[in-house]
Amino acid sequence: MCCCTMDAAEFRRRGREMVDFVADYLENIEQRPVYPDLEPGYLRSLIPTEAPLEPENYEDIIKDVERVIMPGVTHWHSPYFFAYFPAASSYPAMLADMLCGAIGCIGFSWAASPACTELETVMLDWLGKMLQLPEHFIAGTHGHGGGVIQGTASEATLMSLLAARCKAIRRVHASIPENSEADILSKLVAYTSEQAHSSVERAALIGGVMMRKVPTDNSYAVRGDMLKKIVEEDKAAGLIPFYFCATLGTTPSCAFDHITELGPLCNEENMWMHIDAAYAGSAFICPEFRPLLNGVEFADSFNFNPHKWLLVNFDCSAMWVKKRADIIGAFKMEPLYLKHENQESGLVTDYRHWQIPLGRRFRSLKMWFVFRLYGLKGLQAHIRKQVDLAKEFESLVRADKRFEICAEVIMGLVCFRLKGSNELNQNLLKRITESREIHLVPCQLSGRFVLRFAICARSTESRHIQQAWRHITQLTFELLQEPNH
Amino acid sequence: MCCCTMDAAEFRRRGREMVDFVADYLENIEQRPVYPDLEPGYLRSLIPTEAPLEPENYEDIIKDVERVIMPGVTHWHSPYFFAYFPAASSYPAMLADMLCGAIGCIGFSWAASPACTELETVMLDWLGKMLQLPEHFIAGTHGHGGGVIQGTASEATLMSLLAARCKAIRRVHASIPENSEADILSKLVAYTSEQAHSSVERAALIGGVMMRKVPTDNSYAVRGDMLKKIVEEDKAAGLIPFYFCATLGTTPSCAFDHITELGPLCNEENMWMHIDAAYAGSAFICPEFRPLLNGVEFADSFNFNPHKWLLVNFDCSAMWVKKRADIIGAFKMEPLYLKHENQESGLVTDYRHWQIPLGRRFRSLKMWFVFRLYGLKGLQAHIRKQVDLAKEFESLVRADKRFEICAEVIMGLVCFRLKGSNELNQNLLKRITESREIHLVPCQLSGRFVLRFAICARSTESRHIQQAWRHITQLTFELLQEPNH
Repeated sequence: MCCCTMDAAEFRRRGREMVDFVADYLENIEQRPVYPDLEPGYLRSLIPTEAPLEPENYEDIIKDVERVIMPGVTHWHSPYFFAYFPAASSYPAMLADMLCGAIGCIGFSWAASPACTELETVMLDWLGKMLQLPEHFIAGTHGHGGGVIQGTASEATLMSLLAARCKAIRRVHASIPENSEADILSKLVAYTSEQAHSSVERAALIGGVMMRKVPTDNSYAVRGDMLKKIVEEDKAAGLIPFYFCATLGTTPSCAFDHITELGPLCNEENMWMHIDAAYAGSAFICPEFRPLLNGVEFADSFNFNPHKWLLVNFDCSAMWVKKRADIIGAFKMEPLYLKHENQESGLVTDYRHWQIPLGRRFRSLKMWFVFRLYGLKGLQAHIRKQVDLAKEFESLVRADKRFEICAEVIMGLVCFRLKGSNELNQNLLKRITESREIHLVPCQLSGRFVLRFAICARSTESRHIQQAWRHITQLTFELLQEPNH
Repeated sequence: MCCCTMDAAEFRRRGREMVDFVADYLENIEQRPVYPDLEPGYLRSLIPTEAPLEPENYEDIIKDVERVIMPGVTHWHSPYFFAYFPAASSYPAMLADMLCGAIGCIGFSWAASPACTELETVMLDWLGKMLQLPEHFIAGTHGHGGGVIQGTASEATLMSLLAARCKAIRRVHASIPENSEADILSKLVAYTSEQAHSSVERAALIGGVMMRKVPTDNSYAVRGDMLKKIVEEDKAAGLIPFYFCATLGTTPSCAFDHITELGPLCNEENMWMHIDAAYAGSAFICPEFRPLLNGVEFADSFNFNPHKWLLVNFDCSAMWVKKRADIIGAFKMEPLYLKHENQESGLVTDYRHWQIPLGRRFRSLKMWFVFRLYGLKGLQAHIRKQVDLAKEFESLVRADKRFEICAEVIMGLVCFRLKGSNELNQNLLKRITESREIHLVPCQLSGRFVLRFAICARSTESRHIQQAWRHITQLTFELLQEPNH
């Protein structure tokens, strides 16, 4: 008995139609307004209040995609989307995702699907080699490290902080056994840049440890002496520094903490150094950007998001640890229903010990398809093209004396503003958002309200940059014409 | 410049081929051995040690799917897969996932893609109504609750424990301000069944709180008096009970904690009650199973996995909270780059505050497609069919005097064993695993080694159950023939 009219034959038909729908959507995406024009709560009135009792027609559902869904979509893959950071999208990744859905394994352990686990380990090695990571991060070596796909950078940060917490508690407890775990926990202190992503602070909140923000220099980067000063103060106050999260490519301005200074300090102080390069990490596959990663050899863990800038559709956050045992040891649970005969072998990885969730999809297929169908050269070309587009936008801004660039443009992000008040810039952004021709979001740098222009979509070309700038200057002209300016 | 030969036209062609590949794979899956026959580390030698420099041909990659991947796949959707619990798979969900990949939005806030957020809220309402959840869990009412899609039940449990921790610390701190946060944290104690999933204990480990296991009755269920006894002991010892995770449908034997007894106790004691119904929850859409959910009105949060048994491909774990503010308040972070003009409106939900990761896919599309293409009746039919198959297997076991049933068969799981030693049963499972015709995993119940037979694949029919039993009895016959038995 089949409970649904959608059998394999019908799937062949509807699947083909969906492939065309997807291709049509992406080929014509720039004709849609990039940002939706509707009020919160719009959707509820457009659909029934309850699920249907009987099956509906497929045609009705597909019609509703245009009627109900599309008007409420912020089109992240429009060439006019310049907000946040890019969300990766490529046809090879979409094909791999279809295969992933069909296999539909839940790869929490090696036995639950060996291919799922093993391809992941090898893909993380491939990617680690593209980045020229130190050998101790590569699983297929004599080192003790390896890589894993996390869902997001937030989870990678949390995992590293929890592993560091566990290690610190054990170390302190071993040297001063009269200290209770609760005592030690209450004295642990983690650090990150005042420019770090909010998820870092959130990880400390979840882990129940203090977190202190380290001030940055003129380039919004943390230097060694700044961290050293705070660590010394905290140690003098009886606290136990145990973790530092460095950022390579901060969210507000794409600044780079000086890990060659920070790494040795963390190693000396027995502090776990995690590097969050969520956005910028992809660029390290290009030799000209790789020097920014120098110092990674001091890190205990490193993470970046191929799902941001390396054409692997969300979710795919790549994380490496120097010592597998550190991360596994913090969480290992072994109920009988998850045991399998091979797990004591040194060759086996049970990734469920490496992450917060138990279940996991076969995400390494996306990496495999993308890496092979682009090749390293193709991926490098994608990064370079987007950096060039950012430089092109930067030149346009610099040529207009009404504007200023607010942070060095190193990769695909341009931080800029109108010379003048924060209010003026808030007004400009409001007009941009309301016009819905391009989409971007603000940030705050040294107390100033700044516009972030990030090269996001794979389809963005020079003509879209030029058009975006014409649009911004037109809105600026109108804004500055108003009597109150 | 395109960096890859895979443009939209090529995607149309390869996408159609992939649709056929997927349909072929699922139509012929029972001809593949359900469990792979290979040694750990098999894959590394089959592929290069580094990513290619230049793009490869698509044909070569597709050939490698059969050469490299398929031999290492545990086929979760084979009708002979009876291990763990089901992983949902349906054609409507796969179609929706293709659309989700194309839209490719990262819906962390309302503004980042209003449709992504709003469809999720309404789909959780639809599903909540199918389950006849109390009105306070439904967002579109005057209540203060609502639903969210988490990645896995592990994450839902962790979120509920962290929200409960935050609430408890605030409450105790407000009544006894001289207690430091660290003091309170060190006294907090959480509870769950000794039969609960390992992820519950792991959540306590992550949250840095004690967790105590509550003993179960003859049916492997927690009763009110058992929890009450431990809670009283702990309070007398100066501890602060703050959280209980009830299980409806435990992983070892699908037992049901008595939440009508436990709920009022938790409410009296100011303990957060979370209900984990990861597997069994889907069955509550059938009126005949709904009584097992009675008592949910006492819960602060409730979770189950449509990605297990409700035909929505992984990942899709549905969670409801009684008070949105409890879960949001524990983690709210508001950097400028994530602010948007509408967020102060009461209608807006920013789901990033409800979960561990920041980013999220448009997963509610899968629910929308599945609910509409099956209808409630189709979904009920799926559940009932699988329960019937379990009952059919149970009858076969009961008719053979060499075997015993080890726990009441309520849903799609049959726990059984050969009368005799654990070693005998371990040997039987070893033969089953090595024969690779069917796949199942063990559990431990009252110190006994037990075989779990779970109805998993959508394609499993009566003939597969009959064949599986013939196979098991054949292996049993051979095993019992051996001289040492």
